[in-house]
Formats: sequence, structure tokens, C-alpha cells
Amino acid sequence: MNKVIETIYAHRSVRSFTKEQLTEEQIKTLVKAAQSAATSSYLQAYSIIGVKDQDKKNRLAEIAGNQSYVAENGHFFVFCADLNRLKVAGDMEGKESITSIESTEKFMVSVVDASLAAQNLVLAAESMGLGICYIGGIRNDSEAVSDLLKLPDHVIPLYGVCVGYPERTPGQKPRLPMESVYFEDEYEQNPEVLKQHLENYNETISTYYKERTNGKRSAGWTALMAEKLANPVRLYMKRFLQKKGFPLK
Amino acid sequence: MNKVIETIYAHRSVRSFTKEQLTEEQIKTLVKAAQSAATSSYLQAYSIIGVKDQDKKNRLAEIAGNQSYVAENGHFFVFCADLNRLKVAGDMEGKESITSIESTEKFMVSVVDASLAAQNLVLAAESMGLGICYIGGIRNDSEAVSDLLKLPDHVIPLYGVCVGYPERTPGQKPRLPMESVYFEDEYEQNPEVLKQHLENYNETISTYYKERTNGKRSAGWTALMAEKLANPVRLYMKRFLQKKGFPLK
Repeated sequence: MNKVIETIYAHRSVRSFTKEQLTEEQIKTLVKAAQSAATSSYLQAYSIIGVKDQDKKNRLAEIAGNQSYVAENGHFFVFCADLNRLKVAGDMEGKESITSIESTEKFMVSVVDASLAAQNLVLAAESMGLGICYIGGIRNDSEAVSDLLKLPDHVIPLYGVCVGYPERTPGQKPRLPMESVYFEDEYEQNPEVLKQHLENYNETISTYYKERTNGKRSAGWTALMAEKLANPVRLYMKRFLQKKGFPLK
Repeated sequence: MNKVIETIYAHRSVRSFTKEQLTEEQIKTLVKAAQSAATSSYLQAYSIIGVKDQDKKNRLAEIAGNQSYVAENGHFFVFCADLNRLKVAGDMEGKESITSIESTEKFMVSVVDASLAAQNLVLAAESMGLGICYIGGIRNDSEAVSDLLKLPDHVIPLYGVCVGYPERTPGQKPRLPMESVYFEDEYEQNPEVLKQHLENYNETISTYYKERTNGKRSAGWTALMAEKLANPVRLYMKRFLQKKGFPLK
């Protein structure tokens, strides 16, 4: 196994960092890694906001559901879907761009572009001995985050990434069995087969939690997921997107 | 610079592969890399279809706009946003899940989850000496791709990834200047500053194309982008998503 695959396999979400801040050089190394990712049709439809201001970090931590590591880390990046830069490009050339920009297709492209970049940044960080944690919790109030970071129309925050020196290195959570995720030539057509995989996975997860909690917790994956799904979150998202110039036409 | 960052910085899209096929072991190594990525709330909301059937690969190449490397490569992966597995989990537990599954929020999560996984797979492949190319062109007809791969409701194809041994290694295209993509504490508030960055970048890109085409091509980035945006593509996407159980509520 080479160093890259080793780094990829070793991923875990770190939720406790020392006070040491990333240097400017480290930040540049990471942003360059992000920018090295593939991008759909050369659009590069994302931006990254590095948050240094402690008041802003505290506010982001609060929005994310009082996750202290959002305020306390080596650096906090917010990844944004950005179609504003492309709007500016169209305007500079005197060309109409709004039909493209307002399309569901370009929204998808911007989310994909941002996420390929983010994962590059994350792996670069992990290869440098840093820990990371994605923070979807900033979408608890995307409008407040937009205001805080002064995002213009056609730019929305997707998630944060905490980066820093790990204070504790947590364990890894077992992933779905490969046969639940990877299929050849066609999707699994028999729902009973999918269910059987998930039942096997429930055993794995249940054992995992029992061992880590001295038997106090033993839910399987489907129970955890069903519980989450039964409590829908962030149902304001469509309204927010429309307001910010992403009508998903 | 360590091996991981070296691999990340060395990325280019490879569009010409030898006939050598990936081994089962290589495919497993890559899918495991994909699965090692972070996932929002443990949802793991994606699936990957590995396409081996040559007729299917030929059809995908045609859909992608007659891109021969979609048919001829070492392996072809299709990354899908997958909320079907979560629907099954909810059903197994007798819980209502449809409000979550139909939300714009969960659609975003599934696109992000798939893309973090895809970028892990891509970097693992590149670290093994393989070349890759993302194929957004399969979205030229997402419905045909869905039918071909027999994707159920709540599963949609996002993009393909060709993987294989490079026959030719192309150059790298210069990325946006870092100051156009990375901001601190707030988004750049002055549109004139953004424009100035893009004008500088136009110079870079124009020079890049002139050198590669003996002066035949010299468009800047904003001209290329404006041209693309003025010709909107895949405006059927919203209808397709609705039909496949992603009403983006």
C-alpha cells in the first residue's frame, strides 16, 4: 500500500485540536491542493473562505450546534458553491449567462466542483499530520453564515472544514459493506439482497457501538439512519437557495 | 512536498488509455478508498456502478458526446447520488423517511458524499500510476444512463470516472489565481477586484493556449466561460430529478 492510499484509508474525523494555528504557507499549500482537483468544463465553480476572525469562528460554532472545535482549531475553511465569478465573467464579455447560472445542472456542477476541491484539501492536510472534520452543521442556518461571510448572490456556503493538530485521534467507524455500495453493470435489482447486506452491516455497527460504550449503546445502522430521517432537518434550504440566486430551474 | 501532495498537484485529465484492464484487486482497493471518505451524518448517500459490459460502455461513450475514452479504458465507474438505500433503511425500521429524502438538503448531502468518495478514488488511482478523467457528459442524458444501469428511484447518475493506464500524459491547465478562489473572513466585496484578477488570469490562459496551438487559439478564461454559459445545457435536469424521486423540496 502506497503513502497516498495509506493516508486515504487512515481518515477519521478529528474533533479536538491543539491551539497551534496553521502557517500562511500551510494554508497556501492546502488551497493549492484544493485548486488542483478536476473541475467540470474548467468552470472552477467554488470559493473557499478561510475564517481567522475569532468572533466569526465563535458564531459559526454556535450555528453549527455549539460544536467547540469549529471555534477552536488550527484553521477553519468554508467551502462555497460559487457561480458569481462565472456571472462576472459573462458580464465582462457582454454575454447572457443567467439561464445557465440559474439551472439545476450548474448548481450540481458547483456542489461537485467544491467537493472535489475540499477532499483534495482534506487529504493534503491529513498527509501533513493535521486532522480534519467536515462541518455540515453550518447549514443549520445558511443565511446567517452567508451574512457573516458577506457572500454575494450566486454564492452559498456548503460546509466547513476544521483543520488543525489533533489533540486526540478517534477510532474509525466501519463503512457499509462494499457490496452495498459498489455494483457491476447495473444497480442491485433485488431489494431483499440490499436488505440482507444492511442486516449484516447492522450486526457490525451494533458490535462496534457495544464495544465502545460498554454495552450502553447497540443500535444498528438502519436504526440510526431511520431515526435521523424521521426528523427532517433544514427544510428551509430550497427557499434559501432561491433567495441567493439558485432557483434550481 | 510529501507523496500525497505531489500526487494531488500532479493531476491532469487523461483521455487516452491502453487496453489493460484493472484487476479485481485494484478495483477493490479503489472502492475502499472511495468508502474511506468522510460522509455527512454517516449517511453514505452514494453508490458506484462499475461498468464492464462493453455494449454499455459504448452506449455511455455515445451519450457523453462520442468520447472514445469512455468506451476504451481500464475501468469505468459511474458515481450516483443514492437515497434509495436510506429509504430501505427507513422501511426496515418502519419509519417515515420521505420528507427527508425529498428535501433539497438531502440532495445536496448525496451529491457531496458521492463527490468526496469520487475524489478519494481518483487520488488512489493516480497514486497507483493510473490516469483518470471525470465524465460529466453522461448527464447529457441522465435518463438513458439511469435506464442502462437500472437505477431505481432515489438514485441518479452524477458523473463517470474513466480509470486506466495512460497512453499519453497531457499537460496541466493553469488554475484561477489563488486570490480569486480563496478569501479570508469574508468574500471579496469589490467586484472590480474580482474583475482585475480575472483579467490577469485571461493573460495567463491566453498565453497558455497560444503556446499550445502555435498562436491559433488565444481566448482568455472569461471568453471561454461566457461562451459556455451563453449556451445553456441540460435544462431538463430539474424534470429528470423530479421524476427520479428528487423533487428538491
